[in-house]
Amino acid sequence: MPPITLESIRAARDRIGDAIYHSPCPYSLSLSRLCGCSIYCKLDHLQMTGSFKERGARNKLLLLTAAAHAAGQKEPGGVVAASAGNHALGLAYHGQLLGIPVAVVMPRWAPLVKVSNCRSFGAEIILHGETFDDARQHALELASRRKLSFIPAFDDPDIMAGQGTLGLEILEDLPDVDAIICPVGGGGLISGIATAAKALRPGVRIIGVEAEYAPTMHASLAAGKVRRVPTRPTLADGLAVAEVGQLCFEVARQLVEQVVLVSEVDIAKAILRLLELEKMVIEGAGATGLAAALTHGQRLQLAGKKVVLVLCGGNIDVTMISRIIERGMAADGRLARLTIDIPDRPGYLARALSLLAEHGANVKQVEHDRHFGPADVALVSVSVLMETRDAAHIQEIRAALQEAGMTFD
Amino acid sequence: MPPITLESIRAARDRIGDAIYHSPCPYSLSLSRLCGCSIYCKLDHLQMTGSFKERGARNKLLLLTAAAHAAGQKEPGGVVAASAGNHALGLAYHGQLLGIPVAVVMPRWAPLVKVSNCRSFGAEIILHGETFDDARQHALELASRRKLSFIPAFDDPDIMAGQGTLGLEILEDLPDVDAIICPVGGGGLISGIATAAKALRPGVRIIGVEAEYAPTMHASLAAGKVRRVPTRPTLADGLAVAEVGQLCFEVARQLVEQVVLVSEVDIAKAILRLLELEKMVIEGAGATGLAAALTHGQRLQLAGKKVVLVLCGGNIDVTMISRIIERGMAADGRLARLTIDIPDRPGYLARALSLLAEHGANVKQVEHDRHFGPADVALVSVSVLMETRDAAHIQEIRAALQEAGMTFD
Repeated sequence: MPPITLESIRAARDRIGDAIYHSPCPYSLSLSRLCGCSIYCKLDHLQMTGSFKERGARNKLLLLTAAAHAAGQKEPGGVVAASAGNHALGLAYHGQLLGIPVAVVMPRWAPLVKVSNCRSFGAEIILHGETFDDARQHALELASRRKLSFIPAFDDPDIMAGQGTLGLEILEDLPDVDAIICPVGGGGLISGIATAAKALRPGVRIIGVEAEYAPTMHASLAAGKVRRVPTRPTLADGLAVAEVGQLCFEVARQLVEQVVLVSEVDIAKAILRLLELEKMVIEGAGATGLAAALTHGQRLQLAGKKVVLVLCGGNIDVTMISRIIERGMAADGRLARLTIDIPDRPGYLARALSLLAEHGANVKQVEHDRHFGPADVALVSVSVLMETRDAAHIQEIRAALQEAGMTFD
Repeated sequence: MPPITLESIRAARDRIGDAIYHSPCPYSLSLSRLCGCSIYCKLDHLQMTGSFKERGARNKLLLLTAAAHAAGQKEPGGVVAASAGNHALGLAYHGQLLGIPVAVVMPRWAPLVKVSNCRSFGAEIILHGETFDDARQHALELASRRKLSFIPAFDDPDIMAGQGTLGLEILEDLPDVDAIICPVGGGGLISGIATAAKALRPGVRIIGVEAEYAPTMHASLAAGKVRRVPTRPTLADGLAVAEVGQLCFEVARQLVEQVVLVSEVDIAKAILRLLELEKMVIEGAGATGLAAALTHGQRLQLAGKKVVLVLCGGNIDVTMISRIIERGMAADGRLARLTIDIPDRPGYLARALSLLAEHGANVKQVEHDRHFGPADVALVSVSVLMETRDAAHIQEIRAALQEAGMTFD
């Protein structure tokens, strides 16, 4: 008996009702052109707290209320979770809407903005421990000490069924979808979507995607059982889970065709494409689906197919956006930095800059460093950051500098 | 007889059909909290070419085709427009879909990315003249010389009726809306929306918003006739029109309650809020509605009301986003730059940085300039860029530096 079924997902949907946004799933012309297939984006980052996590959280909270009522209690009592991310936000928000007290344990280093966001929904925030496991352990202790219900982030049939409502919506809006590409962290979302989608359309392919730095489902499927995998910091921080859920794994093993991995550069580029072409701020985890379609499109045989990318969250630190734009543009060849050695005499810097201008580079920043220059003391190093058209344009500029006798790297 | 009516807008909607996206208009929890009223965002930046302009362009093109057929011709012949922005993109895209050749005249300085975007939809791009008026003049000449239909950007009943379909959608999705805040450039969008919305719900308030640097409708309404107003470069570049349309003005005079002005800082903050809270990339023009609700909410008596912000476009240069994030964060007190004079001896820079760290500032960049420092040659200037919590936090840091005897500004 699988942990979730089409029926349990449909029941979840009836339960959560209009308090969860049936997010749109529009066709994207620009991404379709880039990927060579018909791309539709499921915009679940438009949920009130910026991610799909509300679906499972609300389903779970409503089931707790129903159970309390069935047991003759008026209220279900409080709940506790360990999360510094979207699960915490979704739970805090729906707890507040439903009048259920929510406590969240976060590691001590949790960013201030996440703490204050969660507090703004009335949640009690407890900072504890150095690692996420410490926080989780403390949340379990609190649950038993204070008689709170512990709400897992993914490995729970009610949470999984709630996430599965996203799959129902996709199939309703796009009944002839060929493939759904879904980011995988603990596996709650993909197992929910796969269960709903495969029940309604057995031929649809469910493709998982993980960051190379957190390949937990990939490794577990290869091993045939849940494997604990060391993760490294990744732009897709929402996917950095050391171990996928046992129940999630069992569903994924049955229903997920393939899990592909994407690199940090692929993720940065995908975030940039979504910003630039789709006008959407998507967090690293949410952008991995596009990264997979762009990088592995051929291997996944997507050509000509109707493909849904699950944009599952948009909670990215705004100060990180600038860095990602620069990294993505550099990867595109649209931003380049050259360090040029020029004679330390009047006119030579101007000559170098004129040369760049003649070749159409748009100089954004010049750093002129006298102290850490080349070995030859008659030269100085000038570091130039410039906007360029593409990699070929950068080559053209390098050739021109070379011809003018300038050394650089 | 007004230039457009509910009927002409309904006819436009039947005509353009599914080729225009009925964009969603979801409730925003975060913006509602900020503005003290119920904010809904009409996401028209999700049109294929990133703005509402497609609505009018497609309506106009289809009417040309119908007229050609009525005259016994097979095809309507080519069209020409002058625009370096969203009008050009919308026209090029729908011209390609409908098999109508599109020529666009842009000023010589038009950004490369706009030229190549338009070309990618098969349009012929002609670069001509230094100003927008030059380009427009040339487009009119081409129209007469090459027997092309000139497609105005706003002052045309078919264009205005097309833009009005956005108003129909708002009233369908939110029949009890109290106020609609709409950016004003030439006035095509607001006159279309006002006509549709007031016909369906006479009590709805239509509020226009312009950049302080391009207050053309504001000045014209005050003068009781269309006034030509010198504009200055603004973040809301899509609104920088020297003169509103005559027909648009006549509709606006009848149906628009109020036009408010917003500053460049207000616009930058609004773009940042939309990025950060709504996960949406909105161009300056599209963000002015939020800027108005944030800045003028009290004067506009929005408290407790259902308010729709028309997010009409998302075509902002991606390299500008970083600058806007920084500007908006600086305006929030979340980013600060201090230039500190410190003794040019080992250890003093470290001491200054430790002090900042103790007070919770997150240093992002340090520039240490020996050449252009203070008059006292024993001192050097260090410019420090840091993340801070708010204006009070910056005050706290300044006080701490002062107490430690450091001079800065």
